[in-house]
Parts: sequence; structure tokens; C-alpha cells
Amino acid sequence: MPGETEIYEAQGFGNSVGIGDAPALLIVDFVNGFADPEMFGGGNIPEAIAATVALLDFARARTWPVAMTRMVFADDGSDANMFTAKVPGLLALTETSIAGQIVPDLAPMPGELVVRKRTPSAFFGTDLVPWLTARRIDTLFIAGCTTSGCIRASVLDANAHGFRPIVVTDCAGDRAPGPHEANLFDMGQKCADLMPFAEVAAHYDSNARAAAQ
Amino acid sequence: MPGETEIYEAQGFGNSVGIGDAPALLIVDFVNGFADPEMFGGGNIPEAIAATVALLDFARARTWPVAMTRMVFADDGSDANMFTAKVPGLLALTETSIAGQIVPDLAPMPGELVVRKRTPSAFFGTDLVPWLTARRIDTLFIAGCTTSGCIRASVLDANAHGFRPIVVTDCAGDRAPGPHEANLFDMGQKCADLMPFAEVAAHYDSNARAAAQ
Amino acid sequence: MPGETEIYEAQGFGNSVGIGDAPALLIVDFVNGFADPEMFGGGNIPEAIAATVALLDFARARTWPVAMTRMVFADDGSDANMFTAKVPGLLALTETSIAGQIVPDLAPMPGELVVRKRTPSAFFGTDLVPWLTARRIDTLFIAGCTTSGCIRASVLDANAHGFRPIVVTDCAGDRAPGPHEANLFDMGQKCADLMPFAEVAAHYDSNARAAAQ
Amino acid sequence: MPGETEIYEAQGFGNSVGIGDAPALLIVDFVNGFADPEMFGGGNIPEAIAATVALLDFARARTWPVAMTRMVFADDGSDANMFTAKVPGLLALTETSIAGQIVPDLAPMPGELVVRKRTPSAFFGTDLVPWLTARRIDTLFIAGCTTSGCIRASVLDANAHGFRPIVVTDCAGDRAPGPHEANLFDMGQKCADLMPFAEVAAHYDSNARAAAQ
Repeated sequence: MPGETEIYEAQGFGNSVGIGDAPALLIVDFVNGFADPEMFGGGNIPEAIAATVALLDFARARTWPVAMTRMVFADDGSDANMFTAKVPGLLALTETSIAGQIVPDLAPMPGELVVRKRTPSAFFGTDLVPWLTARRIDTLFIAGCTTSGCIRASVLDANAHGFRPIVVTDCAGDRAPGPHEANLFDMGQKCADLMPFAEVAAHYDSNARAAAQ
Repeated sequence: MPGETEIYEAQGFGNSVGIGDAPALLIVDFVNGFADPEMFGGGNIPEAIAATVALLDFARARTWPVAMTRMVFADDGSDANMFTAKVPGLLALTETSIAGQIVPDLAPMPGELVVRKRTPSAFFGTDLVPWLTARRIDTLFIAGCTTSGCIRASVLDANAHGFRPIVVTDCAGDRAPGPHEANLFDMGQKCADLMPFAEVAAHYDSNARAAAQ
Repeated sequence: MPGETEIYEAQGFGNSVGIGDAPALLIVDFVNGFADPEMFGGGNIPEAIAATVALLDFARARTWPVAMTRMVFADDGSDANMFTAKVPGLLALTETSIAGQIVPDLAPMPGELVVRKRTPSAFFGTDLVPWLTARRIDTLFIAGCTTSGCIRASVLDANAHGFRPIVVTDCAGDRAPGPHEANLFDMGQKCADLMPFAEVAAHYDSNARAAAQ
Repeated sequence: MPGETEIYEAQGFGNSVGIGDAPALLIVDFVNGFADPEMFGGGNIPEAIAATVALLDFARARTWPVAMTRMVFADDGSDANMFTAKVPGLLALTETSIAGQIVPDLAPMPGELVVRKRTPSAFFGTDLVPWLTARRIDTLFIAGCTTSGCIRASVLDANAHGFRPIVVTDCAGDRAPGPHEANLFDMGQKCADLMPFAEVAAHYDSNARAAAQ
């Protein structure tokens, strides 16, 4: 949104949270139902999943803590809520439904946290905060979908809880380009840093080279 | 965003949460600093404040519980956080600073809750939930600013906590039109109903007429 | 604790929260592992489970919303936390372990909420608040175990979130009598009302008679 | 409670959370009203305040982050809640009331966080979690009053949020000895480590000697 940038700059928005000392990776809702354009997918989500495979490898190679979220509702619909009032189809994402499983390319490994949630945020009604706190994490690299939905909500809560949220831009997908771009703009101005995977990798590779010298 | 609407409709987004049985009014961050284009204001915020005067009268006449939020940081900056890392100027909003006071036209009356917060959401780090719960509120009419910042965050949390969030569209302001429109779109699709004040008033006036017959 | 009562009375503690307009029933951690003295059980827990069968019947007959909690940890221990640092044996309570299942006499029916948690409180890291809020519940009758552990924590959070917590005293069990009594005392003074099931039943039966006249 | 200890030991309770890498000090509700036996004080609270003076000096000398809590209610009582339903006298603790001020011997210094709260826990409805998270704190030494009220609630929440809670036993006070002892027992078994100040000091002094060699 080029027209808006000047207003935000003049008012002092858009500073950087920066990369801290202890990173973790959070992958939001990359499940089959959001990879499928016939369900909740579409747009640039396939490309974002593909890019996240490399990001996940990178994180595992550095032994970063990895957490992944799924939307999971009860088989009997007993936990239907105000979010499913807006989007009733989400109730199809249950513990055992195919649509609710994490996509095979990003399947979690033992020790990685699988967060079951029923609202957009990875933090609401979950134990993500204590899991990060106990590991003294201060920086959260965030991939997943959708940019305008569960990433936006998770980034807001990551910021509120005191973590440095960094959206890995090419690992974030949305079913429609307008909301994707609009939400990257909002997050970059107000709650997160934005960084493509190449920049994340360059930061750590550069640090590794400096340490080796 | 006309191009996107079809995708969301096809995937079953955008259903209504509806007006419930017990409404309250939440006015977000209509303080002097956000009314001032030289600080954090601009755009359609003046018009939104003017429209909210009528909405507040309406709510008081019906004895709805009314809560208003302010951003309030400590004089010594001891509670600076990840939000002020992105927007350092917000630290100027202190308990006694003029910029941090609610605009005179919307000054709270005794018994109305003034919520002090340090993040975008009216719910994070505050006692808004218990205040609403103890009053058995199920519907939250939301006015304030900015649509793309503190309203978006508050609406997300209202929805997550099980309240029906209804954004009163002409009582919501933002410093820039693009983010205002983009966030109304997102909220209408995923977490809130959108309704101008006239429609809110018509709903209750119509109910009152029906009850009188 | 007879000696202490005078101090609390003189300082104005121990007032009543009262029974409100919209009750729900919360049954905390009555799972096989807590019914078994060889695991985490003992004391008066068997009697409390037996008394809760009647309470659950009573609640269902009046169509109160019913929620039940279980401690559930991941099979790979990825969500071990500071609570399991104190009590490592709790990690045996997994989704499919026999010890982690709700006791057969209190098995949940469709539509009743089963809350999976990993800390003492039924509220922490769960969606219990939105589930209650959406139903406009204001009063929470609480049964379960242990009085000094998960009931105490759940009652504190129920009170903090604005609900009226009422511990049904003969439906609350603990592995040891000292902590059971000490925690009833604390809760009665500071955060909950205490009431045996007979008194709960008498209240509603009396109301029903009054309404019938 | 000597009789109970065996049961807890047999069931695997009472392990240690241990001292981590990054400590902070939390002082709970040492305000004039709780130092005054005519209001909410009495018992061993004066001794606990005196002991905390040394603990606070110790923490400041090591530049630990320091947070202190106060109960603060609105002058108009608009934020009365379920806790004040049980203990109405707490509403006298307002922003400017003498009873609500931190005792002079423990007055906060610039940069120390003063947490205003309206429920027992230092975490509920406050920004304590993000303040600790942003500083990568993993260990929380806890002093204050009362052991059976606001310390118990704060320790439960510290544990739930993933911090290692350590109650500094001689810096924790209560108006009555029975609840003081009973709550130390519960916390030591289930959510915190218990340590007199001398043991805390010895731990760090011993570490300092080891580092100097």
C-alpha cells in the first residue's frame, strides 16, 4: 500500500523488533484442508508450503524448537464456537479427519509440539506460551496460513506475550492476494518484522561464519 | 475487495454471528492522541468519533454496560513492550498525559469501565472478560480506532472469548483508508458482523415497537 | 480451622458469591488414574465420585451445560511442562491411556465438553471460558479432584474470570484429609461458596416449587 | 503436615523445579493495607516484610528484574469483581489510597515494574508474562503476602506459564499460621520449590565463588 506508507512513517510506525538470541519456528495450520482449494486453500498456499519445507529443514538442522498448529474440533461438535459461527465448515477439521492432518511434507517429528486450537491464534486456549517460556525463546519465526487469518492472529498474540514475531514472507500463504498483502502491511507496521526465508538463512549463515573466524 | 468475495463465499466464510440477548458497548482508544493527525490520528477518525457520540447516547439510554479503553504506559517506561518496539511513540500515552485521555465528547461516566492496556487488544492484560462475564454479556458492539490496529485485535479476542463481536462501521476510524477497508473485509469474513449505527438503532427500535404492541 | 475463622471474619472475608441465574456443572479430573490409590488417588475420592453421579444426573435432568476435564499429555512427552517437573508421573495420562480416561460412571454424553488440559486449572490453555461465555453461564458448580490441586486452581480461575464458583463439598475429593480441609477453608474465605449436594438440590427444588405455585 | 507427606512421596509428588539461568524477583502485595492488622494484615507479615528488604537488596545488587504487585480498584468501584464479592473491603485499595501503596521499605525504583491487579494472581489481567518473556526470565523468586491468597494464586500461574516458581519462605507472610503452613505444603508438593532467603543467597554466592576461581 504505497499511499499509506508515508502516513505510518511520519507517525513513527514500522520500527523493527529484530532477531533475538533464542529462535523457535511456528508453523500455523498447514493442514490438508488448507492445502486444498476445494476446502479452505488456494492462492499462494502451495508455494508457501513448498518454501516452508526448506525452512523446517533449516530449523531442524539448528535444533530450534518447532511447534505446529492444527485446528481440531470435537467429533460431536461440542466445542463449536464463535469462530465456527462465522465459518461453519471448519468443524470438519477433527482429530482423525484427513483434512485436519498436517500436510505430509511437513509432518512433525517426535519432540516437536503439535498445538490443537479452535480459534485463529496459536496462543488462545493452548499451552504455546509455557512451552516457549520454559525454553527461554525470544524470537518466533512464523510460517503457515492464512496470512489474513491465523497468522495475523498468532502474530498479534506473539507480540502481546513479549516474543519477537518475524513473519517469513514467502512461507506465509493465503487463499487470496489482496488480504495477503494487506495483512503483511499491517503486521510490518505494527507487530512483526517481515523477512523472506533467504534473509533469515543469510542472517544465521553470516553469524556462523563470523563465529568460525 | 470485490475480487476476493467470491472465493470466501465459495468456501463458506462470512456467516453472521447475530445480535444476542445482552449487549454491551466497547469504545476502543478514542483518546486525544488518536484524534490528533500530528500524533496517531488522521483519516476518518474525526467522523468516527462524532458518530460514536450518538452511539454512546444510545447505549446509555438503554443502560448497556459501557467500557472504554486507553493505552497507558508507566511514566518511567518500565512497561515498554514488543508493541512499543514497533511504535515507540506510544510510550507518550501515560496516566496523566493529555494525549492519553479519552476525548472530552466521550468522557466516561461513573460506573463505566475504563480499561488501561498496553497492547492493541482490549482483552490482553486486562479484566474486560470478567467484567463482561459477570454481567452475562453475549454481544459486543465495538467502536473506536484504529480499524486495522486495536479494533482488529479486540474483535479477534472478543470472538475467541465467545462474545458476538459487531463492528459499528461508521463508528470505527483509521488513519488511512486502505487498511480500514481491508480490515473490515477480514473481520466481516472471519470474526465479526459489520453494521452501521443506523442498523443497530433500527434493530433495537424495531424490537421495542414489537414489544410495545 | 476454627482458630483462624475469627481473624478472617474480623477482616471481612468469607462473604457469599451466591447462586446466579445460569448454572453449569464442571467436573474436574475424575479419571481412572485419580480414582486409583496406586496412582494419584486415595482418601475420599471414591466417595466423591459416587456423590458426583447423583449431581451429574441432577444437572442433566435440568439440561445444564456440563464440562469435564482430563489431564492429557502427548505420547512423546513433547508437552511436558513445569507441572510435570513437580509430578513426573502425570505424563502417563495420555489420550488413549486407561489411566487418563474419565471414570465409566461419569462418562460424558454427546454435547458435553471434554476439556483436555496440562496444568491444574480447567481454564489454563483451554477453551472453557468461551464455551461458558457463549452460553451466558454465570454460576459454576464444581466437583472433582483433588480439592487441594486441580479444584483449587480451577476455582481461582473461575472466580478471576467473573463466574460464581460453588464447590459442591461432598463431590470434591482429595488423597489426603489435611489438604482437603485446608483448601476448602481457603476457598470459602476468598473465592468460592461451599455447599453440599443436598443444599444445591434443595435450592433448585425450592425454586421449582415456588415457580409452580 | 507430616502424616500426608508419605502419600505424596509414594505417588511421586514434590520433585524440584530447580533454579534456572535467568532469575527475577516478584514481590506480591506488600502494601500498607496488608501490613496493617486492622485491615488485611497480621500474623507473620511484619517479619516477612523485614526479610524481604534484604532479598530486594540482594536482587538489585545482581540487577535482577524486579516486579511488585498492588491491588488497585477504581475510585468509583466500576471494576468490582467476584473476588471483591467475597472480600468487599479490598475495594478500599485504590490508586491513591494510603492502604494501597507499597510499604515504604520496599518502595519501587525507576525501571521496576509495578503491576496493578484486581484478582489474587499477579498474572491475571496483567502484563507480567510479556515483561518476563521479553527478558527471557525462567526463574521467579516470590515474596509477599498472603501465602494462602495472592502468593498461592501467583505461584500457580507462574508454574502454568512455564516459569520455575521458588517461594522464598521467610519472605512470605500470612495473617494466620494454619493457612500459611498448609499452602506452603501444597505449593511444595505440586507447583513450586520452597527455599529460605539464606539458601537463595548461598546458591548465588557459591556460584560466584566458583566463577571467581
